[in-house]
Amino acid sequence: MGHVRAEIVATGTELLLGQKVNENARYLSEILADLGIAVRQHVVVGDDAASIDAALTAALARSELVVTTGGLGPTEADLTRERVAAVTGRPLVLHRPSLEAITSLFARIGRPMPESNRKQALCPEGAVVIPNPLGTAPGAIVETGGRMIVMLPGPPAELRAMVEQTVAPFLAERLQQAGQRSVIRSRVLRLVGIGESAAMARIADLAGGDNPTLSPMATGGEVWLRITARAACRRDADTLIDTVEEAVRPRLGDHIYGRDAETLEAVVGRVLAARRQTLAVAESCTGGLVAHRLTSVPGSSAYFERGLVVYSNRSKTELADVAPELLARHGAVSAEVAGAMAEGVRRSAGTDFGLAITGIAGPGGGTEAKPVGLVFFGLAGGGPTLTDSRMFPGDRKAVKLLASNRALELLWRRLRD
Amino acid sequence: MGHVRAEIVATGTELLLGQKVNENARYLSEILADLGIAVRQHVVVGDDAASIDAALTAALARSELVVTTGGLGPTEADLTRERVAAVTGRPLVLHRPSLEAITSLFARIGRPMPESNRKQALCPEGAVVIPNPLGTAPGAIVETGGRMIVMLPGPPAELRAMVEQTVAPFLAERLQQAGQRSVIRSRVLRLVGIGESAAMARIADLAGGDNPTLSPMATGGEVWLRITARAACRRDADTLIDTVEEAVRPRLGDHIYGRDAETLEAVVGRVLAARRQTLAVAESCTGGLVAHRLTSVPGSSAYFERGLVVYSNRSKTELADVAPELLARHGAVSAEVAGAMAEGVRRSAGTDFGLAITGIAGPGGGTEAKPVGLVFFGLAGGGPTLTDSRMFPGDRKAVKLLASNRALELLWRRLRD
Repeated sequence: MGHVRAEIVATGTELLLGQKVNENARYLSEILADLGIAVRQHVVVGDDAASIDAALTAALARSELVVTTGGLGPTEADLTRERVAAVTGRPLVLHRPSLEAITSLFARIGRPMPESNRKQALCPEGAVVIPNPLGTAPGAIVETGGRMIVMLPGPPAELRAMVEQTVAPFLAERLQQAGQRSVIRSRVLRLVGIGESAAMARIADLAGGDNPTLSPMATGGEVWLRITARAACRRDADTLIDTVEEAVRPRLGDHIYGRDAETLEAVVGRVLAARRQTLAVAESCTGGLVAHRLTSVPGSSAYFERGLVVYSNRSKTELADVAPELLARHGAVSAEVAGAMAEGVRRSAGTDFGLAITGIAGPGGGTEAKPVGLVFFGLAGGGPTLTDSRMFPGDRKAVKLLASNRALELLWRRLRD
Repeated sequence: MGHVRAEIVATGTELLLGQKVNENARYLSEILADLGIAVRQHVVVGDDAASIDAALTAALARSELVVTTGGLGPTEADLTRERVAAVTGRPLVLHRPSLEAITSLFARIGRPMPESNRKQALCPEGAVVIPNPLGTAPGAIVETGGRMIVMLPGPPAELRAMVEQTVAPFLAERLQQAGQRSVIRSRVLRLVGIGESAAMARIADLAGGDNPTLSPMATGGEVWLRITARAACRRDADTLIDTVEEAVRPRLGDHIYGRDAETLEAVVGRVLAARRQTLAVAESCTGGLVAHRLTSVPGSSAYFERGLVVYSNRSKTELADVAPELLARHGAVSAEVAGAMAEGVRRSAGTDFGLAITGIAGPGGGTEAKPVGLVFFGLAGGGPTLTDSRMFPGDRKAVKLLASNRALELLWRRLRD
């Protein structure tokens, strides 16, 4: 494997019907670029043998590495195992450890293993099996005539776990053995509280370079800046990236909360855990999303004491200790109630911080004075109680997401200051 | 254009670097399926002439319709116009109305037109130009030897506007002229509480058909069955689909909760709203995810009264009224505590139903007796209090998601019975 070129072959009728976007190809492209492997083509074909065979044959003729996604399930429509076996001329053989893993997965969840799942333990003879820590479909690496086929399942969580645990380390070692000298590295700076064009306006003069490159991406109400560099080794590439990051920070540091895969909830959680401080939240319009994000971080039980989803006015009074007069005077969607909710949940939970959100997620419930998208925030603890408001665009899901970002951003800023 | 097959050829290095997902291909696939055009392949290639030529030539050899996306900008890397001209043997000619449109767009924003934008007004001789209402890059439709190439720009908003205003009506008229009477329709049956292979085992004899087809998809801990039919008109296609659904229902009806875009939380919410019943939830390991899902449904404030995220033992006692002795005797992760949480939250909220979840989401906190993935459920109201448990595979996020599915499933079953 000298200067490796790769292709990604996805199978799945749902992709061709437009029911699902090919996120796996995007993810794999990013991972392969990080390894210095140039991806030259993505192909999507349906679940039929002729199309899969043609795509595999064409890809193997052009490129050293072919990664397949999908088609490793237990059903008749899952053809990747047998098509790779046919195209490479390797018989399918039973891989006993995989069969045991599948059997024990079913045993663990207390269900009988359907007979059809047995075929998931088949793999082309001589292949390296890729364990699947999250599902029944193992993958495989098949080497044939100087080419390599990596077979991965379609569910993104399974695919990612297998790439991180097995495929990426395997490829990295191979590339090193083969003496590949150039690597592509990239780093994401994650920003909150600023839009894409406002962020780019501050760093326009830094964005024209060829190596490293600096490019923005707007996603989930956040802006991510990706810095990518190619160099002889990891360290050299990272040094190039450091230089760009050092130029960006003085201009955008106030918005950069993390790097790469770090989420805002993980960054906030890390600070709370390190300081042995605790947090409780009271949510109205976000409806549990802030608590869900905070508790998605492993170890969050160390600092997250409780969450209240106070949808009704009665629950705001009973649980978050908001005076009925305050609700009557200012309405549930107000800075006064947001502040009272934050103080109330902090007091009843006995935590260091209380964070509160109340607003109108829509589509109904808006008025001229308080339109859909208007959200108030309260933060108690670590200083005087703070209130804040924002008008968010978009539908119910967007308003919930953007409001949860803003709530976590307020907490992040207070923890930082 | 009789029975049309299509392919989508996207150009763009950013797609091959994993910086962008190929959402245009998903969107176009959906639009083409609605027109009765079967998409057989997606391809992504980089911005180089040889790759684009090879992809175009291969696609034209297989399919009647080739849609390209990207490569219509003003830069050196934008090659689609010239490559389509080369592959179809048509010279590029200046399209005066396009040049005027581009010039006046720059005049409107008060900037001089860079010389490089002039090339965007070129198109292959004899092509139908597709106006771009949102940007400088017009598209084009080139017909050649019984084949058709539709060229569209990369920015999704521009592409969509051009498809809606020009391309879709153009294709619909062509199909009608050619006497194509056929449409493709599809319907999804959404299942909960059963695995993909177990579901397919019950309907294996129904899944072999060619038209309609019946195929499963496992997603987010659910199984979806997609029925797709081709027929002369919508009604005939829907009748074919009905026939399959009627055959599936007796065998899997116990697990089918909805169709197409209906979520489990929306189905549960619709029943509660119709009966004017109310719900409160108490969550430990799901950490607010069940409340978040329930409150993502517009109008959920009519039936969702409150949610408690009782992460600490103290909050379980204070908020969900779980006796400390019960916690001490059985542990927080137990059927007894799940049942007490459900009854406690129902009582304090004064709702018709109380739903509770407590378990070990991991990665830490597991023991031999209570391993990571073990989750208990409680449901109070509408009958005797019910408790239930499950062992879920996967990481923290997977356990949270699967547990939220099971909790909503239990409520759905009780509402149905």
